[in-house]
Amino acid sequence: MTLDEVVASIRPADNQAKQAAKQRQQRLTKPPGSLGRLEDVSIQLAGIFGTERPIVRNTTLIVAAADHGVVAQGVTGYPQTVTAQMVMNFLAGGAAINVMARARGAELVIVDAGIATPLPAHSDLRVVAPGRGTKDMTRGPAMRRAQAEACLEAGTELAGSAAERGAQVIATGDMGIGNTTAASAITAALTGASPRETTGRGTGRSDRELEHKIACVERALDVNRPDPDCGLNVLTRVGGFEIGVLAGVVLGGALARRVVVLDGYVSGAAGLIAASLCPAVLDYVIAGHLSAEPGHRIALRRLGLRPLLDLDMRLGEGTGALLATGLVEISAACLSEMATFDEAGVSDREAADAAGSTA
Amino acid sequence: MTLDEVVASIRPADNQAKQAAKQRQQRLTKPPGSLGRLEDVSIQLAGIFGTERPIVRNTTLIVAAADHGVVAQGVTGYPQTVTAQMVMNFLAGGAAINVMARARGAELVIVDAGIATPLPAHSDLRVVAPGRGTKDMTRGPAMRRAQAEACLEAGTELAGSAAERGAQVIATGDMGIGNTTAASAITAALTGASPRETTGRGTGRSDRELEHKIACVERALDVNRPDPDCGLNVLTRVGGFEIGVLAGVVLGGALARRVVVLDGYVSGAAGLIAASLCPAVLDYVIAGHLSAEPGHRIALRRLGLRPLLDLDMRLGEGTGALLATGLVEISAACLSEMATFDEAGVSDREAADAAGSTA
Repeated sequence: MTLDEVVASIRPADNQAKQAAKQRQQRLTKPPGSLGRLEDVSIQLAGIFGTERPIVRNTTLIVAAADHGVVAQGVTGYPQTVTAQMVMNFLAGGAAINVMARARGAELVIVDAGIATPLPAHSDLRVVAPGRGTKDMTRGPAMRRAQAEACLEAGTELAGSAAERGAQVIATGDMGIGNTTAASAITAALTGASPRETTGRGTGRSDRELEHKIACVERALDVNRPDPDCGLNVLTRVGGFEIGVLAGVVLGGALARRVVVLDGYVSGAAGLIAASLCPAVLDYVIAGHLSAEPGHRIALRRLGLRPLLDLDMRLGEGTGALLATGLVEISAACLSEMATFDEAGVSDREAADAAGSTA
Repeated sequence: MTLDEVVASIRPADNQAKQAAKQRQQRLTKPPGSLGRLEDVSIQLAGIFGTERPIVRNTTLIVAAADHGVVAQGVTGYPQTVTAQMVMNFLAGGAAINVMARARGAELVIVDAGIATPLPAHSDLRVVAPGRGTKDMTRGPAMRRAQAEACLEAGTELAGSAAERGAQVIATGDMGIGNTTAASAITAALTGASPRETTGRGTGRSDRELEHKIACVERALDVNRPDPDCGLNVLTRVGGFEIGVLAGVVLGGALARRVVVLDGYVSGAAGLIAASLCPAVLDYVIAGHLSAEPGHRIALRRLGLRPLLDLDMRLGEGTGALLATGLVEISAACLSEMATFDEAGVSDREAADAAGSTA
């Protein structure tokens, strides 16, 4: 399917199932509303899966990795080779995301979306790279339009395959030295916020490094003039290959009617691009956590999403998303498996009131 | 062991193991600090278990249930029989906590700490009740001192048994119609906050009901004059049997050097009592979540605890604690199982700086 066909095929969630789930929540053996945000999530899941009792057990985390030409400007504290080294660490099972995926029983899909350093072939590495890293966005567009489209289509396909393999939950993750700089530029372009608001320290340290990073984002926006109404244009001008792939994962997850759990700032930027192309994707999206990167809050506000977790994390890789999938699964289980007042023979408050009880 | 012996036997956590864990976190393949609060939790776990690589896999949730004489004042919207009905629902597997325990693979221990309604015998119900519900605290002490001590000792023993069966994590949960009223009185007594600050709607609904509940808490404090420096006195005057048992669980968990994950407001009140008896317990305690009940924030501030989750939940039963145990387990796994920079051949920032890299 082409990008236009994908966008045209995404349908809103099932409102009837959501209403049925909402009513079911009132009949479960607990005070109405007492499970708080787990109830909201469960109702969203009912809409996504088209049933008042959704079953949500299998998670696939798609981690897209790529490099960024803007690192030539010295925006980050790690050398570019770390992108490749960390991907090798993912493949060897030693990174945070490996530990979490084992703990959660989640499938991990590691994607080379455009890593600069040559990697040895590995049977577990999915290569969809349209190039070996983006160009320096402070000097011109980060990529060609055809590359941006290729990323989106690859991501859509990765999400579709995960759904076919049985994933109900698709989580997003990223790896890419320099990619918070791209996320800052994308967030500024698509929300109208200033680079000073959208730019954080990333893995950098000093005030001077932060000022330099802000200046680079300002220059990238000035040089490229991305169109705030077109996610594809923004991706092309100031994006990253892994961000394009993750935006495609959001589109593909919505197309396959699966829940998409976003990780932190880089995934949030991907969410902004996907929502710009197709606002209906937001029915399928959950914000896993709030990153410590300040721009993430701005991205989530624009998306109208409230994060499930807030743990001062800023690692990326999908770590925040994967933690949140545990809450997502449990919210569905509560809706689908709890007994109702009738089934359990428990008095609900309404019944007590009707019987004139004053206790 | 008597209560005094328990209190005298609780030791602080292992500071050397904490320091070793802190250093290990710096060598793991991620930017230092990027796992945020998961790193703090993992260091606490290292101190509790006395090793820089703690293994935390098995959770036991102890849910204590009891009734409250103060319901005679009409402080809650549900009839008192619901305590017994919900305990039967726990035993039948239909409540939120059952669904979550299945999802988390956690052991569930259901405790009758003093339920007013007679229950049929059940092999899975642990009965430690020193009476069939407390007396109305607006008219005198909620219980006798011997009953309070019996609750604390029973809770200590329940936690010790859970530890012997292999639990590394002990989570607390409560069930008791009227018990947010007791939690409000305890929190006011032990923090010095006013009943207006510590009292929320619980499962009640109207402003008038809330005003009445506040007045009842004020009266209970006025009639009983609990000693703000003595958790045992506060428990006796304005406590609840299940709250006493949970305070004992906190003591017993600390004694057995296990991590204790507190649920919401009622568990927080139990935490205040335990910490009043033995401040060293706080080395072992994690606040699972922030309840929607406003007094919970006051209790946690006094305890110096920052909750892991904030999901607008106010169900009790241990639901917030059990959700948080997933994060606790993963924090230990990241510390213990992630590769170091050396092991993975990944460049860390310090090394890059030392080599003069500017990327």
